[in-house]
Amino acid sequence: MSAALLSGSGAAALRHNAAAGAGNGHVGTVRSLNIDNINQNVREAKYAVRGELAIKSEEYRAKLAKGEGKDLPFDSVISANIGNPQQLDQKPITFFRQVASLMENPELLENEEALVKSFGYKSDVIARAKKLLKDVRSVGAYSQSQGAPGIRQSVAKFIEKRDGYPADPENIYLSAGASSGVNTLMNIICASPKTGVLVPIPQYPLYTATLSVLNAKCVPYYLEEESNWGTDVNSIRTALKKAQAEGIDVRAVVVINPGNPTGGSLKPEDICSVLELAAEEKLVVLADEVYQTNVFEGEFFSFKKGLRDLQKSDKNKDGKFNNLELASLHSISKGMVGECGHRGGYYEMVGFDPEVVAQIYKFVSIMLCPPVIGQCIVEVMCNPPVEGEPSYPLYKQEYDGIFKGLRERAFALYEAFKQMEGVECQSPQGSMYLFPTIKLPPKAIEAAKKADKNPDDFYCLQLLDATGICIVPGSGFGQKEDTLHFRTTFLAPGTDWVSRITKFHKEFMDRYRS
Amino acid sequence: MSAALLSGSGAAALRHNAAAGAGNGHVGTVRSLNIDNINQNVREAKYAVRGELAIKSEEYRAKLAKGEGKDLPFDSVISANIGNPQQLDQKPITFFRQVASLMENPELLENEEALVKSFGYKSDVIARAKKLLKDVRSVGAYSQSQGAPGIRQSVAKFIEKRDGYPADPENIYLSAGASSGVNTLMNIICASPKTGVLVPIPQYPLYTATLSVLNAKCVPYYLEEESNWGTDVNSIRTALKKAQAEGIDVRAVVVINPGNPTGGSLKPEDICSVLELAAEEKLVVLADEVYQTNVFEGEFFSFKKGLRDLQKSDKNKDGKFNNLELASLHSISKGMVGECGHRGGYYEMVGFDPEVVAQIYKFVSIMLCPPVIGQCIVEVMCNPPVEGEPSYPLYKQEYDGIFKGLRERAFALYEAFKQMEGVECQSPQGSMYLFPTIKLPPKAIEAAKKADKNPDDFYCLQLLDATGICIVPGSGFGQKEDTLHFRTTFLAPGTDWVSRITKFHKEFMDRYRS
Repeated sequence: MSAALLSGSGAAALRHNAAAGAGNGHVGTVRSLNIDNINQNVREAKYAVRGELAIKSEEYRAKLAKGEGKDLPFDSVISANIGNPQQLDQKPITFFRQVASLMENPELLENEEALVKSFGYKSDVIARAKKLLKDVRSVGAYSQSQGAPGIRQSVAKFIEKRDGYPADPENIYLSAGASSGVNTLMNIICASPKTGVLVPIPQYPLYTATLSVLNAKCVPYYLEEESNWGTDVNSIRTALKKAQAEGIDVRAVVVINPGNPTGGSLKPEDICSVLELAAEEKLVVLADEVYQTNVFEGEFFSFKKGLRDLQKSDKNKDGKFNNLELASLHSISKGMVGECGHRGGYYEMVGFDPEVVAQIYKFVSIMLCPPVIGQCIVEVMCNPPVEGEPSYPLYKQEYDGIFKGLRERAFALYEAFKQMEGVECQSPQGSMYLFPTIKLPPKAIEAAKKADKNPDDFYCLQLLDATGICIVPGSGFGQKEDTLHFRTTFLAPGTDWVSRITKFHKEFMDRYRS
Repeated sequence: MSAALLSGSGAAALRHNAAAGAGNGHVGTVRSLNIDNINQNVREAKYAVRGELAIKSEEYRAKLAKGEGKDLPFDSVISANIGNPQQLDQKPITFFRQVASLMENPELLENEEALVKSFGYKSDVIARAKKLLKDVRSVGAYSQSQGAPGIRQSVAKFIEKRDGYPADPENIYLSAGASSGVNTLMNIICASPKTGVLVPIPQYPLYTATLSVLNAKCVPYYLEEESNWGTDVNSIRTALKKAQAEGIDVRAVVVINPGNPTGGSLKPEDICSVLELAAEEKLVVLADEVYQTNVFEGEFFSFKKGLRDLQKSDKNKDGKFNNLELASLHSISKGMVGECGHRGGYYEMVGFDPEVVAQIYKFVSIMLCPPVIGQCIVEVMCNPPVEGEPSYPLYKQEYDGIFKGLRERAFALYEAFKQMEGVECQSPQGSMYLFPTIKLPPKAIEAAKKADKNPDDFYCLQLLDATGICIVPGSGFGQKEDTLHFRTTFLAPGTDWVSRITKFHKEFMDRYRS
């Protein structure tokens, strides 16, 4: 990765340093920082989603934009490496952005008639902006460290409605995307190099990267590919016991549902099994539920609901679920919202020790507050127009349209994968990704070895060079030994790019056939 | 601090936990996390700007808002603890917010005539929004990890214009406020518990808090209160040598200019002295220049200009300045912009090893990107309307008005402090703060001891209880032994609140007079 990064920003920095020194004709002196004396925990961290391939794809994109890409065998770059819908032509939801425009310029509210007549703003847009402005005063002002009180109330109501159980705004922490929430929670949990956190494999690399930076242990447990990437509680228990036997102090278990990169969606009974294990073993549950509305099969079932159900049930006779610590994370970046660039999200903490919560409060205070306009988008996501309100018909049409489009493309891609030699893919259940297995011919494995690459890196790099499509090799997420995968989003519009993959794959397989 | 935090969010969490367990009539089981087993580096961190006093003041504010504060001896809370101008009625700059509104809802651009006629949008507002939209595509899309390329170009041009030396967009990293930039740089620099960073005392507690969290050493050097909180390079050298003798690997020196909390503004020769020391001792210079436009005396002189001047000078015969590593930070939160809630900023890195830069790139990638609308505000801050452009007259009027207001209030407060018994204050030079010394009577010191408080905490708490004005005790920033200070912003409108302080101070001194 390092070499590849250098070809991006690093190379420019090199040029610049050379230029800075050039005027004096002297070789520069030794610096304070070098690759061997900086924080080695950062050096160890891996984050493939924006790694070598992503950087190379940006270089192709820049080249094409300058009209310099005549030699390339493609005319556009498709970023299927990252769940970034609005980079790929997904239109933002009108209600959300109309409200945001008024938040940014409240002077627009001084001529409501023109808003309505010239721009089609409905009365509920205007009312919502006024309500939010009252709560945050200005999107240019810092809010409370844990987020604006009124917005946290809306989030609590949303959770109540979703789960049928009360939620307390004081337990809600708004964050700059779910990533920032994960970072906060991990900073609190990871007390020493012996602290361990159970992480599903494959996983979204935020988790392993954050654990690396914090010098704590990732305790991997494998998902069951054959049962649509389900969670087998026995495999979690086995991983836990093994780690404990090695002296690791396992504190928490991460579950990503619906799954990233897998696209799987967990059944309620699996969720409850994880909660039971966590209660028995005193583990914090970190439920990454950012894809909770990206569900194509069945209905989303939250960890919070599972926990409250268990607390009411016979299984809680001994009170073992009473203080189970659950942090569940959500985001405006995914779902049908897709507002990644606004960096908004929240986490709800239940069962945490108040003294620990006070430390979390202090920790987030150091960074002052999450972006306030992002907080406002959290509010409208949690509290969208409802039937009977003027903005509802358009909202519903846009929301359903995005959902339908995602579903269609997921299945189109799935069907294409099913036809491809050596490719096996679980049926799309949720999230924004497919994570097929690929079986490559021995000659391709050898060629990868010669190029000093993992076979899946080799495959994805060749795909990029041949088609302009950027996907992420399975090694970036973790995979069982001797298996190969890749992750692709199904966000890019149209299906032309799917046939680019099919064509490349056939040629690749033919080239390396024994 | 812990007890105070509990009275805020913690108390609610406690109530909630009790409620969750109540249904079963069982005492909850032991949790995974408690105050003694979480990351103790976080526990050690202190951040007084949003600590006990700030939380208590928010409680007063909430009480008054509900109409329940009849028993309080004041009718409004003044948050002079934090540089949050738009919380205190500072109006955002119209050009910035008009552009932001179009970024949030590009559909407004479909009726330019109405924008102009009904809302007074000028042609340069519309042109700027179109240019930015071309660069970022959508404010809802992730940008490149280091920030949108076109915005980094504008920042580079701004730096070039300010300093008279070229700047390279590849060396610019956009960030979620300057705080996030400091956090990134410290994460890279702090390699072990023996890593040390020179930090001015008094300082903005972000620095000590971040070093605590990273388990690295703060190496304090004292600013010279008597010479308007200037930097004495000899005192930095003494602190450095002392730390090195103790086995600390000192890697970097932080300078905050203009000063927070001090309000001091450094002379060019002092800046060059620090750079010389850094070059000799191989220290990274972290120049916190977020108050660069809040200068009331003389002109702002940047570390970057100082470095380039030195690189061209005779002092660089041996090339010692060629690879001096300088990171200078700026923000949209301060100046006349005051857009704290948007969480925008940037840092420029010069002289860094490209391999180190590649690690910084990877580190920021894990959090994906800074808020994109915040990035857009960075752009308009760096590239505001200029003379001859339609939005210029209003921009100039607003900018100058804010500057004048800040200056007037700074001096009004300074004059009031000069009249107060036992209070000494340096004349306002820059930033948004005054940091007077207070000498309290022995009886007050005793009373504080009895209340188990630092004397400055005791004073500030009594001020809050009596007047509703929230300021921050000097102990939150660090101060020489046996001295007491407090920090106050001069952002709150009007001067009524200044006389509330004067009145309280007289009564306080009378009460504790021997």
